[in-house]
Amino acid sequence: MNRFSRKCSSAWALIGPKGGEEGILERLNAGEIVIGDGGFVFALEKRGYVKAGPWTPEAAAEYPEAVRQLHREFLRAGSNVMQTFTFYASDDKLENRGNKPRFTGTQINEAACDLAREVANEGDALVAGGVSQTPSYLSCKSEKEVKAIFKRQLDVFIKKDVDFLIAEYFEHVEEAVWAVEVLKETGKPVAASLCIGPEGDMHGVSPAECAVRLVKAGAQIVGINCHFDPLTSVEAVKMMKEGVEKAGLKAHYMVQPLAYHTPDCNCQGFIDLPEFPFGLEPRILTRWDMHKYAREAYNAGIRFIGGCCGFEPYHIRAVAEELAVERGLLPAASEKHGSWGAGLEMHTKPWVRARARRNYWENLKPASGRPLCPSLSKPDSWGVTKGDNALLQQKEATTKEQLKQLFDRSKSQ
Amino acid sequence: MNRFSRKCSSAWALIGPKGGEEGILERLNAGEIVIGDGGFVFALEKRGYVKAGPWTPEAAAEYPEAVRQLHREFLRAGSNVMQTFTFYASDDKLENRGNKPRFTGTQINEAACDLAREVANEGDALVAGGVSQTPSYLSCKSEKEVKAIFKRQLDVFIKKDVDFLIAEYFEHVEEAVWAVEVLKETGKPVAASLCIGPEGDMHGVSPAECAVRLVKAGAQIVGINCHFDPLTSVEAVKMMKEGVEKAGLKAHYMVQPLAYHTPDCNCQGFIDLPEFPFGLEPRILTRWDMHKYAREAYNAGIRFIGGCCGFEPYHIRAVAEELAVERGLLPAASEKHGSWGAGLEMHTKPWVRARARRNYWENLKPASGRPLCPSLSKPDSWGVTKGDNALLQQKEATTKEQLKQLFDRSKSQ
Amino acid sequence: MNRFSRKCSSAWALIGPKGGEEGILERLNAGEIVIGDGGFVFALEKRGYVKAGPWTPEAAAEYPEAVRQLHREFLRAGSNVMQTFTFYASDDKLENRGNKPRFTGTQINEAACDLAREVANEGDALVAGGVSQTPSYLSCKSEKEVKAIFKRQLDVFIKKDVDFLIAEYFEHVEEAVWAVEVLKETGKPVAASLCIGPEGDMHGVSPAECAVRLVKAGAQIVGINCHFDPLTSVEAVKMMKEGVEKAGLKAHYMVQPLAYHTPDCNCQGFIDLPEFPFGLEPRILTRWDMHKYAREAYNAGIRFIGGCCGFEPYHIRAVAEELAVERGLLPAASEKHGSWGAGLEMHTKPWVRARARRNYWENLKPASGRPLCPSLSKPDSWGVTKGDNALLQQKEATTKEQLKQLFDRSKSQ
Amino acid sequence: MNRFSRKCSSAWALIGPKGGEEGILERLNAGEIVIGDGGFVFALEKRGYVKAGPWTPEAAAEYPEAVRQLHREFLRAGSNVMQTFTFYASDDKLENRGNKPRFTGTQINEAACDLAREVANEGDALVAGGVSQTPSYLSCKSEKEVKAIFKRQLDVFIKKDVDFLIAEYFEHVEEAVWAVEVLKETGKPVAASLCIGPEGDMHGVSPAECAVRLVKAGAQIVGINCHFDPLTSVEAVKMMKEGVEKAGLKAHYMVQPLAYHTPDCNCQGFIDLPEFPFGLEPRILTRWDMHKYAREAYNAGIRFIGGCCGFEPYHIRAVAEELAVERGLLPAASEKHGSWGAGLEMHTKPWVRARARRNYWENLKPASGRPLCPSLSKPDSWGVTKGDNALLQQKEATTKEQLKQLFDRSKSQ
Repeated sequence: MNRFSRKCSSAWALIGPKGGEEGILERLNAGEIVIGDGGFVFALEKRGYVKAGPWTPEAAAEYPEAVRQLHREFLRAGSNVMQTFTFYASDDKLENRGNKPRFTGTQINEAACDLAREVANEGDALVAGGVSQTPSYLSCKSEKEVKAIFKRQLDVFIKKDVDFLIAEYFEHVEEAVWAVEVLKETGKPVAASLCIGPEGDMHGVSPAECAVRLVKAGAQIVGINCHFDPLTSVEAVKMMKEGVEKAGLKAHYMVQPLAYHTPDCNCQGFIDLPEFPFGLEPRILTRWDMHKYAREAYNAGIRFIGGCCGFEPYHIRAVAEELAVERGLLPAASEKHGSWGAGLEMHTKPWVRARARRNYWENLKPASGRPLCPSLSKPDSWGVTKGDNALLQQKEATTKEQLKQLFDRSKSQ
Repeated sequence: MNRFSRKCSSAWALIGPKGGEEGILERLNAGEIVIGDGGFVFALEKRGYVKAGPWTPEAAAEYPEAVRQLHREFLRAGSNVMQTFTFYASDDKLENRGNKPRFTGTQINEAACDLAREVANEGDALVAGGVSQTPSYLSCKSEKEVKAIFKRQLDVFIKKDVDFLIAEYFEHVEEAVWAVEVLKETGKPVAASLCIGPEGDMHGVSPAECAVRLVKAGAQIVGINCHFDPLTSVEAVKMMKEGVEKAGLKAHYMVQPLAYHTPDCNCQGFIDLPEFPFGLEPRILTRWDMHKYAREAYNAGIRFIGGCCGFEPYHIRAVAEELAVERGLLPAASEKHGSWGAGLEMHTKPWVRARARRNYWENLKPASGRPLCPSLSKPDSWGVTKGDNALLQQKEATTKEQLKQLFDRSKSQ
Repeated sequence: MNRFSRKCSSAWALIGPKGGEEGILERLNAGEIVIGDGGFVFALEKRGYVKAGPWTPEAAAEYPEAVRQLHREFLRAGSNVMQTFTFYASDDKLENRGNKPRFTGTQINEAACDLAREVANEGDALVAGGVSQTPSYLSCKSEKEVKAIFKRQLDVFIKKDVDFLIAEYFEHVEEAVWAVEVLKETGKPVAASLCIGPEGDMHGVSPAECAVRLVKAGAQIVGINCHFDPLTSVEAVKMMKEGVEKAGLKAHYMVQPLAYHTPDCNCQGFIDLPEFPFGLEPRILTRWDMHKYAREAYNAGIRFIGGCCGFEPYHIRAVAEELAVERGLLPAASEKHGSWGAGLEMHTKPWVRARARRNYWENLKPASGRPLCPSLSKPDSWGVTKGDNALLQQKEATTKEQLKQLFDRSKSQ
Repeated sequence: MNRFSRKCSSAWALIGPKGGEEGILERLNAGEIVIGDGGFVFALEKRGYVKAGPWTPEAAAEYPEAVRQLHREFLRAGSNVMQTFTFYASDDKLENRGNKPRFTGTQINEAACDLAREVANEGDALVAGGVSQTPSYLSCKSEKEVKAIFKRQLDVFIKKDVDFLIAEYFEHVEEAVWAVEVLKETGKPVAASLCIGPEGDMHGVSPAECAVRLVKAGAQIVGINCHFDPLTSVEAVKMMKEGVEKAGLKAHYMVQPLAYHTPDCNCQGFIDLPEFPFGLEPRILTRWDMHKYAREAYNAGIRFIGGCCGFEPYHIRAVAEELAVERGLLPAASEKHGSWGAGLEMHTKPWVRARARRNYWENLKPASGRPLCPSLSKPDSWGVTKGDNALLQQKEATTKEQLKQLFDRSKSQ
């Protein structure tokens, strides 16, 4: 009995621990809820181990204790999936625009697999190897070249025997389909999630049509991650589900949204918000927002429910707590959390003890403390996508002249 | 050469590493800037290791790897002080209102000292042992009884040979003076910081008068922590400084504020905000807010500059980056952070590369993404303080009847 | 030369006065811009002459000097159309729900025609007789009965020889078509405007389809009034225009929106906002918002541009000022208004003189001064329309029991 | 029996009409509430008869029907005082900075007196002749010169036999004292109100001290008008009252605040807000805000309660309705207004009928409909006052070069 399932047998476990033996498809086929983890690049950026800009995961090799600790926190919060910290770990991305990690792609991908496996084995979790969109695609490289990129990461995942694969964070369904086609060759279960909203992908393909193409390419699980807030993302997955069902196909559904409110986003998502990536704090969801999200996702028929950028362990715990009855257990970290604020009964101040109730937190409209700031922003809308010159990626650092052109273009928008 | 000072010799170190040999007073007397850490209870609550309500630090003994990791992140972010994670670790507090940690006060305090020392030795940092306000004082126990409480924690700090002592998070200067008097007996340097704002302590004693009393009691460093946002706290420390200078006394000054905007608080601080403690997200300061804070604190003559609840490692890093020229070095974690957003030069999207400049981030007014929420709240104002019946603390859990009375009182406010 | 065209010959007239001889269709056919007036019920409610709730126009007979003065202010602000103040002046509406005006429908309609004519003759304006939706329709009366209601108002308009007719403020295109059919029989030009947004009428008929039906019924001018803010309304008229053109039909277009921002409205418009009708102040458009509106409307090919609820004379003046070059003249009231704030050059305070420029006002983001209030509301969404029992109208006052039922239903929504 | 008191005898009059025979002091001495009117320059600016910038009242001579109508609306709303529309009607102000009214100061002042008297005689109202601060004072002219300016306006007031005099809208108590000294010579009752807030006048004199000086100079009524919102203004009058009572003096108190929320103002009031004067709409008070204001003012012992810039007739009516029981009558205009929204019982839509209750409106937090705008602004703070070169007034229009200097200074603030 491992350290986390041990916890599950104490008072705050509603029914008892699940065995960790079954694969992702067995679980989903059995109607189980699978809880994902949160986005590592944002969480580790705040902890000092990821650089905003390149967003590459060399910390897996450089600072394994920091990455391991974050895995553990998500596991403890209820995650059933440890995604390898391999976001943007394709060779072409690692060396993009002047970024020069001290480790090779292979080193990083291997280290990430080892960490995910180590922690997954401490509890009831699966390891998922992930690939994501490539600079090569944006720079209009051929299908063959792009597929070769995915293949190289995949070799590591197979060697390290991950439990299943995720093609995630794709803005163009075309590239996601290529990824799925490569991943399928391994025989492992394949999930595919796009970073799009209800308006569809960057080429204007609707969520319904995107989902159909991914399922036809072989993905068993399809859905949405990143770029939009939870309720918007659930909305987009619903559209995917309708499309798949209308086409007479079958799939499981996943959602791993932002932990940021994005009601003002256009089709490009939070990347277009003026606050991205260093001014997003006022948009962070509370744990109570997460309860609503988990319920909505569940009600929409989604069973792989996790998070992306902005999610901290307590956000995942809130998802797990909302679905505790359906899952039959509370997460380990709930030993440190009274349901719906009940822990406040132990607070020193009487008026804070008076907040120890669901009704209080469910109806709170939290203030920003920023009266000089607006509540919504006007997103940038450069409207450029694959094919636009400004999107060509390069190994060399962006030059001063290139930057000046960007500043000028920025002002004229 | 240790792992963190090694980093300091690379490109992003402006001048070079400082030796870690000098004590807190030597540093402050020499005019050095000492950077504090962030608040552990809030950071670890989000990570799943502290329970909101009791807010006790048993994780030091239960989950040392999680506490060690947080220490490391603050050290890496630039902190020169590792505070022992001993907040509310007095025996009377540990057993308050039904809270029953699996470890004794001595076990927790010892474990916390060991962790702080272990990480401090990895870089240029001092270990500070901290005591804070007690339920005994609120429950009107005698000076002798309250002092005995502090004495017990202190025994551990002496045994573990911390570098200096902090009496922090006191709402009543009277109790803080008692704490300072006990701490002084050890011969270690003593810092004292109150959790008050410009309106003064809960008995209405002004910041200026509070500071004078603390200095007269023997504190060499005085200031403010917790309860208010950075600029408000700096304002209160300025008032302390004026009071001390007017009284012909001398002291060093410290400030360790919240990372939450609190323009709408009354004298009780963020505890009175309806958002406390589970809806504060929209108030979290950005890293750019931290630059302003660090500059204001420095300009006010404060040289011990840190954080409290809400601070994450990247907030402390921002303080260290703002003061990099004055300190002569950048923190280790700046290897993963381009100054003023410069890392964005390596971003995929051209319009995000266009944000790689100070002017952009310094003038951003970040939106909350919450158009249905207000920008300010009306704080609770029960106005109860030491002596009020509702503040009497008890070992037993709050009963349902007691809770009902609180809910009713809450509605009638 | 009348008193208003006299003004037009002074310095602030760009080209010179227009003759008042031509009818509405001649003007629109010639490509002229026709400026409407503002909504009388809201403006006169604030002045103390209309009762919110019944919203009936008995003031035309009771307080003619107040109504005449408002007509004059709009004429002076640039209006080319004086709408008779006959909103809700159908007999069935006048006696609805306990409302008992001291005057008959005929008296009110006649008085309103006389006032509109008197002031129209003082300047370059036409008189438009208006009918609007009836309680009879909502209460499911027959087409014949509803048409008879319109017929009665129409008799007065013919007797008083108004210049053209407007069927306005219809939520259901079916009823609007009935109105148009009745109005057409007079041989006068007929305009028809619905109080709907881009989502269409209360039965879900799209703006495009609504417009086609109205044109086919004989309306020469079609468009939108009330219920939504200017930019939303212009959007809906664009959809109408597209529909009409797609159907191979021809029409002129009109828009007379609210002077309130309504980004948070559903299909029912501002009636559903919790602020309706007594808390709308923070939503009032500035004159600069009106400049944008006028330009958008003009660019969309709309040539009959006016206002509805919330419009004050200075709002119409802003429309006229924005289109001064296209119209070849400034309105009379511009003698008291420097273009884009130029009058501030004469202000006492130097920092206010510094605001005498277009760039300042065009970019201002005006604060609400209400930090405890949200920026958007969640609209009521009872979703009831023609046919729902709660919409049955009655002559008798709403009883206490009926009110209690409504309050209860309100809380449960 | 006149037309307005006639109304008072109908159903909505609670007790009955007051006779109009008594003077202002007799009324106040008897403990009566005297309701003032609203600010004419702002109301008539919106109607197209006053030019923002010079803000002069030539419309009294030019457009008497518009001014008369506004007087009538305030009378009907409950005003007991008709202030002559003579704001800034001193000769030096009329010819300031290129402003060239077509009428002389005497013509304007006389016309204004006649209009006020005509309407006052239609109901239960007194006529008050008003003088306000002068450009001469700001330009550092001598006491003698400034007093001569007041004297000239006063000659008209005496000739026209106004009922009492008000020295209002003074930013410097020194100039207000001069005005009071001149007005006192007439033997008429004298009221004096400053446009200051709790921070005191532009020279830093506290409200308490200002009030004492004014009472000593002979003012029988002292208070505050313009520049701040109602609750702030009531606060300042309270400070005046305390000062007067502490000094052992006696006085009556008046308050005529803005109808704009100004929580973000500094000592200069709304003039410093970036929204002044053309973007203030989102700050307009609702009628329910006025209820709170009236109650607060009454509770503070203020008995002359009126309004200034931003007040429309319905705002004054709300004041009169809140104090209906204390005054023993409802205003005439309440015939068109159900108390606390009761008129909505007659609304067509059931969910609007559900809003016909005090509880609904009293607790509404009205949204701005402007999610891109902040809730508070940072006021301009040029901090210039009498003596600063930029405040020197001139007859000639501001030149382009002068404007450029202002724009540049504006940007550098």
